[in-house]
Amino acid sequence: MKTKQIVLTSRPVGLPTLHNFRFEEVDLPEINKGEILLKGMFYSVDPYMRGRMNDAKSYAAPFPLDQPIMGAVVALVSESKSDMFKTGDVVVGSLPWRETFITSEKGVRKVDVSTIRPSYYLGVLGMPGLTAYFGLMRIGKPKEGETVVVSGAAGAVGVVVGQIAKIYGCHVVGIVGTDEKVKTLKEEFSFDEVINYKTAKDMRKAIADACPKGVDVYFDNVGGEISDAVISNINFHARVVLCGQISLYNATEVPMGPRIQPMLLTRSVLMQGFIVSNYQDLFLEGTQQLTEWVTQGKLKYTETVEHGFNKLPNALLGLFTGENTGKMVVEI
Amino acid sequence: MKTKQIVLTSRPVGLPTLHNFRFEEVDLPEINKGEILLKGMFYSVDPYMRGRMNDAKSYAAPFPLDQPIMGAVVALVSESKSDMFKTGDVVVGSLPWRETFITSEKGVRKVDVSTIRPSYYLGVLGMPGLTAYFGLMRIGKPKEGETVVVSGAAGAVGVVVGQIAKIYGCHVVGIVGTDEKVKTLKEEFSFDEVINYKTAKDMRKAIADACPKGVDVYFDNVGGEISDAVISNINFHARVVLCGQISLYNATEVPMGPRIQPMLLTRSVLMQGFIVSNYQDLFLEGTQQLTEWVTQGKLKYTETVEHGFNKLPNALLGLFTGENTGKMVVEI
Repeated sequence: MKTKQIVLTSRPVGLPTLHNFRFEEVDLPEINKGEILLKGMFYSVDPYMRGRMNDAKSYAAPFPLDQPIMGAVVALVSESKSDMFKTGDVVVGSLPWRETFITSEKGVRKVDVSTIRPSYYLGVLGMPGLTAYFGLMRIGKPKEGETVVVSGAAGAVGVVVGQIAKIYGCHVVGIVGTDEKVKTLKEEFSFDEVINYKTAKDMRKAIADACPKGVDVYFDNVGGEISDAVISNINFHARVVLCGQISLYNATEVPMGPRIQPMLLTRSVLMQGFIVSNYQDLFLEGTQQLTEWVTQGKLKYTETVEHGFNKLPNALLGLFTGENTGKMVVEI
Repeated sequence: MKTKQIVLTSRPVGLPTLHNFRFEEVDLPEINKGEILLKGMFYSVDPYMRGRMNDAKSYAAPFPLDQPIMGAVVALVSESKSDMFKTGDVVVGSLPWRETFITSEKGVRKVDVSTIRPSYYLGVLGMPGLTAYFGLMRIGKPKEGETVVVSGAAGAVGVVVGQIAKIYGCHVVGIVGTDEKVKTLKEEFSFDEVINYKTAKDMRKAIADACPKGVDVYFDNVGGEISDAVISNINFHARVVLCGQISLYNATEVPMGPRIQPMLLTRSVLMQGFIVSNYQDLFLEGTQQLTEWVTQGKLKYTETVEHGFNKLPNALLGLFTGENTGKMVVEI
């Protein structure tokens, strides 16, 4: 049996392009005992993947060249030689960008799709949701009445952060890059204020206006000048959750900016970088809480869905130009 | 009775000069019930005082113009109308830069000078010692075998940080600005490695060489390019204690540098600013522990002593050119 796959052919300098990817057809062997044959349903594209395209030490190992990209995938079991799965089961795992693939029964877990949309296991109930939950709860530690600012607020992590902060009684301010996202976050996700950084004349003042009591928690997905503006409004004893720096991921030189340490020092601010796997032992707790909020209707979610396996590289590139609202997924 | 005092006459732009100070003579009134007449013995000069010379919101209120500078002073009770103090007692408190002064009995506390040098209450057993203790123990949390780097290592705080880290079994690396300080810290204060940043050709490499297992705790007293070099060697899950940024205190423009958030993010690093008063409720515990280490000989201390009340402004300015080893005090 043949299948299509997408491999990384070269390491991008700056913004990745379609030339960094190659589509090819490969043969699949017969499946063995303990293995399952899967057909991809939903493929996740995530900002952290940009880091894996480099050949540099980071929290995730680089993608090898000429091998299929790996990412979170929701897939259907179409043949099983495992006692753990049967044909028709839906599973999620870190899997290759192939249309059809064989994997060990140990590499995936079964998910309940009777009441929950399968793609949610790539978003609000997957890595992005857990990232939002642990970053905000374990580092940000929002208290009722505090002001929480989220950058990249319309992204897969940001929409969850804002809503959890609302559940905890905070004044929630989002930062996004289009007026449409401003509207969506205010009207559908109950953010108190949302700033479009592309049209704001003075970001520092825009944040001061949106945060009359200053910023107690800053959940940072983007970095760069947006973060400079937020940090200039930071309160004494504030917490800065470093979750992403998407504005800098494609930088080809060391990005320069105002030194932040004097501000963090004089205001006793905590800044903490993290990756969701730091909280691996608590994933069950996190998933249960997120599932509860989703089923109670307290936590809504939105996705940008591209259709067709061929769209995967475009969807990944779209993250860096802000084309998605909520989680970007590719359905095939 | 007349006394000499030193007032702030203007707010410095950049490095302070002697022109920012004025010596004057003032009359002291009679002392009232509940008050004591004090004669200054040892006056503290500290880097944080530079911030108070500005008219900007920070953790300590600005010094008012044309009023005496306030700082930590050890003084002798020369007349008492208080039941709490008698003539000959030695006290410490936040007091004006006057040779002789009257204060309420509530503004000072008596100290034991039978076994401990009075000036130590301005240093290892005063604010600098407590700053070292709480910053290192509560934020840095050094574990046995970890590598602790201290900048401004020969300063009033730095020498204490390094020695506490040694008590906890760490590999301790200091950064200083003269070869004499290198020698002193290695020979008298048991630092494992000490780097002279003024003669090191490549600070990033110098730190890598001195820290073969990377940097787990960075206790930062100086900021700027020295800190850039340390942070480029930081380990996964490291802690950066922001205690001071003396290299930037006299900057007249916003200092620029490489953005550190990507590094803190990908290595799950914690950075925390603090001021010693955050731990006010624990001062007794801290002072007891430091006193115990000093009396046991586990914690040594060194001072640079200037003589004469007139030397106070010079002594303060000397902090910014690195003229002190250990605590800078003025004895009169």
